[in-house]
Amino acid sequence: MATVAYLGPAGTFSEAAVRRLGDVDALPARSIPEALDLVRDGAVDSALVPLENSLEGSVPVTLDNLLSGPPLRIVGEVVLPVSFALTARVPLDEVRTVASHPHALAQCRAFLRAKLPHATTVEVLSTAAAARAVAEGTVDAGICAPIAATTLGLPLAAEDIGDRPDTATRFVQVVTGAPGPAPTGNDVTSLAVYIAHDRVGALLSVLTELAVRGVNLTRIESRPTGERLGRYVFLLDCAGHVAEPRVGEALLGLRRVCAEIRFLGSYPRDVDDAPVPAPAGMSDADLLASEAWLSGLRGMFQA
Amino acid sequence: MATVAYLGPAGTFSEAAVRRLGDVDALPARSIPEALDLVRDGAVDSALVPLENSLEGSVPVTLDNLLSGPPLRIVGEVVLPVSFALTARVPLDEVRTVASHPHALAQCRAFLRAKLPHATTVEVLSTAAAARAVAEGTVDAGICAPIAATTLGLPLAAEDIGDRPDTATRFVQVVTGAPGPAPTGNDVTSLAVYIAHDRVGALLSVLTELAVRGVNLTRIESRPTGERLGRYVFLLDCAGHVAEPRVGEALLGLRRVCAEIRFLGSYPRDVDDAPVPAPAGMSDADLLASEAWLSGLRGMFQA
Amino acid sequence: MATVAYLGPAGTFSEAAVRRLGDVDALPARSIPEALDLVRDGAVDSALVPLENSLEGSVPVTLDNLLSGPPLRIVGEVVLPVSFALTARVPLDEVRTVASHPHALAQCRAFLRAKLPHATTVEVLSTAAAARAVAEGTVDAGICAPIAATTLGLPLAAEDIGDRPDTATRFVQVVTGAPGPAPTGNDVTSLAVYIAHDRVGALLSVLTELAVRGVNLTRIESRPTGERLGRYVFLLDCAGHVAEPRVGEALLGLRRVCAEIRFLGSYPRDVDDAPVPAPAGMSDADLLASEAWLSGLRGMFQA
Amino acid sequence: MATVAYLGPAGTFSEAAVRRLGDVDALPARSIPEALDLVRDGAVDSALVPLENSLEGSVPVTLDNLLSGPPLRIVGEVVLPVSFALTARVPLDEVRTVASHPHALAQCRAFLRAKLPHATTVEVLSTAAAARAVAEGTVDAGICAPIAATTLGLPLAAEDIGDRPDTATRFVQVVTGAPGPAPTGNDVTSLAVYIAHDRVGALLSVLTELAVRGVNLTRIESRPTGERLGRYVFLLDCAGHVAEPRVGEALLGLRRVCAEIRFLGSYPRDVDDAPVPAPAGMSDADLLASEAWLSGLRGMFQA
Repeated sequence: MATVAYLGPAGTFSEAAVRRLGDVDALPARSIPEALDLVRDGAVDSALVPLENSLEGSVPVTLDNLLSGPPLRIVGEVVLPVSFALTARVPLDEVRTVASHPHALAQCRAFLRAKLPHATTVEVLSTAAAARAVAEGTVDAGICAPIAATTLGLPLAAEDIGDRPDTATRFVQVVTGAPGPAPTGNDVTSLAVYIAHDRVGALLSVLTELAVRGVNLTRIESRPTGERLGRYVFLLDCAGHVAEPRVGEALLGLRRVCAEIRFLGSYPRDVDDAPVPAPAGMSDADLLASEAWLSGLRGMFQA
Repeated sequence: MATVAYLGPAGTFSEAAVRRLGDVDALPARSIPEALDLVRDGAVDSALVPLENSLEGSVPVTLDNLLSGPPLRIVGEVVLPVSFALTARVPLDEVRTVASHPHALAQCRAFLRAKLPHATTVEVLSTAAAARAVAEGTVDAGICAPIAATTLGLPLAAEDIGDRPDTATRFVQVVTGAPGPAPTGNDVTSLAVYIAHDRVGALLSVLTELAVRGVNLTRIESRPTGERLGRYVFLLDCAGHVAEPRVGEALLGLRRVCAEIRFLGSYPRDVDDAPVPAPAGMSDADLLASEAWLSGLRGMFQA
Repeated sequence: MATVAYLGPAGTFSEAAVRRLGDVDALPARSIPEALDLVRDGAVDSALVPLENSLEGSVPVTLDNLLSGPPLRIVGEVVLPVSFALTARVPLDEVRTVASHPHALAQCRAFLRAKLPHATTVEVLSTAAAARAVAEGTVDAGICAPIAATTLGLPLAAEDIGDRPDTATRFVQVVTGAPGPAPTGNDVTSLAVYIAHDRVGALLSVLTELAVRGVNLTRIESRPTGERLGRYVFLLDCAGHVAEPRVGEALLGLRRVCAEIRFLGSYPRDVDDAPVPAPAGMSDADLLASEAWLSGLRGMFQA
Repeated sequence: MATVAYLGPAGTFSEAAVRRLGDVDALPARSIPEALDLVRDGAVDSALVPLENSLEGSVPVTLDNLLSGPPLRIVGEVVLPVSFALTARVPLDEVRTVASHPHALAQCRAFLRAKLPHATTVEVLSTAAAARAVAEGTVDAGICAPIAATTLGLPLAAEDIGDRPDTATRFVQVVTGAPGPAPTGNDVTSLAVYIAHDRVGALLSVLTELAVRGVNLTRIESRPTGERLGRYVFLLDCAGHVAEPRVGEALLGLRRVCAEIRFLGSYPRDVDDAPVPAPAGMSDADLLASEAWLSGLRGMFQA
């Protein structure tokens, strides 16, 4: 069975994400860098790490490690709805202490004000630790992932208690040498591009390369390069797969205008959205027709 | 004396940042949202909160709160070099346990491997908590901000132990009604712009509005809007002050092409860099000359 | 009565265009430069000269003179449908010689092949000269403007005999000091912009300045500067009037990116087309709302 | 020997241009359309016709015929310096009548004012006709190409008498089926692209396709399509040869964004200028390196 490292401890949203991969042997790591190094060292087949909108605050660590560490390739993603639950050992009106990770407490402020206005909040290192604290009896209640409570046999006193419904965490599965997934028609390509930050219009050039090929940008983030605050690398998620003509051509263009480019992977999207269709004249059939036209023109010339 | 809320506890890098503001009455808050709400409620004059590259993982909370909460305005920034120190109760070769925030432990892995290969790491909620644990004797050593150790009268066993030198955290000072700072010639303007994410080239339009006016982009980040993963708002930092002609004109352009725009503030940069000079033809003098030329043309026509 | 110089002789399409100006005193000049110099010298109030698609071949002369001569300003245009007629002294089947300007003969080739396959063509200096040759009896037939035949009392044997229906010539009326026409809501602004031809993307910058303000380009032509083949100036016709905010702002932008710019005039269009409406967010009302918003932002800052 | 049709009569600048092609059998045609039809009908091997800056006013005819007639392909160009000469039967101070084409008279106004202020100008159909009129004794002097005078055994009374030195006419050589010329490293590619004129930014899209590939634009002209004044086709001259990767890729891009595109030819430039070097990252070597990089990326994926 394939082994997958993830950010432990067991019982967090990260474990819930791993379960979405099917029948795998899930191995909790103590940190994201440790999970990624387990892949690099060959100790596991892959790792599943949070990339975006994590409530545990770990995304910058993932990004920086993927950018500056030995190369890893993203082969899949898991978008996990984040649904907070309250587990309690006592009836709600008797709860005097409620534990969770600071971010989870922050995300559930409206619930806490309305339902537990007199409870004291206790900050712990993870939502799983909050569930364990309830199980161990050190606090009356905890905010955690439903999976954490059920794993420990704890009751769910309230579900979906976050201030913002429909939040989610996006995890990516990374590997070293294995072949990447074939195109599915609804893929993402992740890239890191480095540009000289003080040239007006440098990023404009980058985006023009995408727009000209009708390639949609679904996410962009500038990150300091570590050399110094103010020197940036841009992380881009583009719709499509490197094997598709449009995306391939856009990558060629990006490589020309960027100081450096790191290809992070092409992989299927884990969302229900239909892919945005190619703009007029940009379908694969259109591109093939264009290529045939150009070949015809070139055939009229002396070698 | 002006009161400034910040993310506590005392002894963290956040407190070190507040000290950079001069002689103020610093008030630790338990979370970033709490610090910001203290400003909104009028309980403090301003708050200083981390925005970028925080090792404590709190930036998304800041951004989301600034975007979705009642309006606050940024009036200043503090860029604080992040320098980790080791404080220890015993000689290095006797250290068996070392505590810190998980991110700080991750940032100091090379030091830990080289100097404390046999110590067990203990994760705590903040670097200040690590220093307190050393003071209380529950661990042998802790990784923290130098200020945390000196505040508690603890010795510094090693300094600058992070893997990456020259990292920094950028804090912003926010207020409600007070007048904003006048232009200094080396300012930043922060904006949030909302665009329909599925139109190819929408972001390109946004950046073109800046580039056409010679306004440099120093940071960009797409954030989910909270409605759903995949709907984004872009956070932009531009060089210059809204009172400057170039920046004002660019804002006018952005307002036209964006579904929505939130102005977050214009304020002096806290870096030593000289500002990037305006491109040819884009200086304030050039803009005034252009305006005079246009007025002359218009004067030749019937009203 | 106002005096208007035009390219003679009387009886050409140029005279027909002058008649469209209403009750004026029309003065034929021997050449376009002569007509324009009559304005510069104050001998006439204005001149009406062909600018575009002339079948008489005179447009480059107009353009070059407007660009390199002492400044003149365009205050109006006349778009004249070009309709060729055949005037003949004898029945069609007896026509042995048919005269006209070489371009007119070229434009009526289908008619000549079908109806006068055995006639010899005779090239003369203008379509008016062709009509005169018929009147003088030196040829059997001539191709000319209907006005030329009727002026001389000649019969029209066939009308609309050009190969391409709906062709037209565009004339512009130029003046020196008089005030220009107020905006009508359906105007054109003509410009000459000079750019360094060997910078990739220079023209792109020019067009971006227009596109960003939603200003439509209705005509563009590169012209050699006369210094050397390969050094160009671009002649642009844009929809709108310099007094309109969008056009004014675009001119400011163009002035910054161009080595040199010559404003040729803003004047009403002489076509039935409704003007293309402003793009979303670009109406004058939108622009005023944007200005108010920016003023509000700036009002929050110290002077 | 290859036969080449040109715009007659013999003795004009057009004949001088044909002589530049080397040892060919030159056939004068009565009009540009006739010359082009001789090629289409197979009566000659090629035609050499003026395209740009002609003083004889014939360029629009060439362009319109190349665009709307049965396809022809440009295989070469001749850029001919235009140098006017005065031929006279009598000493200068005895010249009372001077003949030439109206455009030539206009181009030599400064000379005429200074040296022949009292002579009457006589307009004739071509500069060659002016020389013939001198030979026939109907006028005292004529302005013509030096070749016209020497062919007729006439003396040159003055040379280089045009107002603008360094003017030139650009002729193109067109064929039907023959193979086009191989790349030389200093070529031009001529195109006609059709776009919907009323979409703001349509032309911007066209130019972006070129700029993104570092392809330089050396000439642009909008032409009415003939359907109606206001509907345009753009004639573009780009630096480079269709067989080059950069130009080929740009053509692919143009074909996608244009309603229609007509390839007119790739052929060597007839100028002394060194070609503008490819921008950074855009050399053929760079493009090949990019392609290899992309192939490597794609090779990592399942078929």
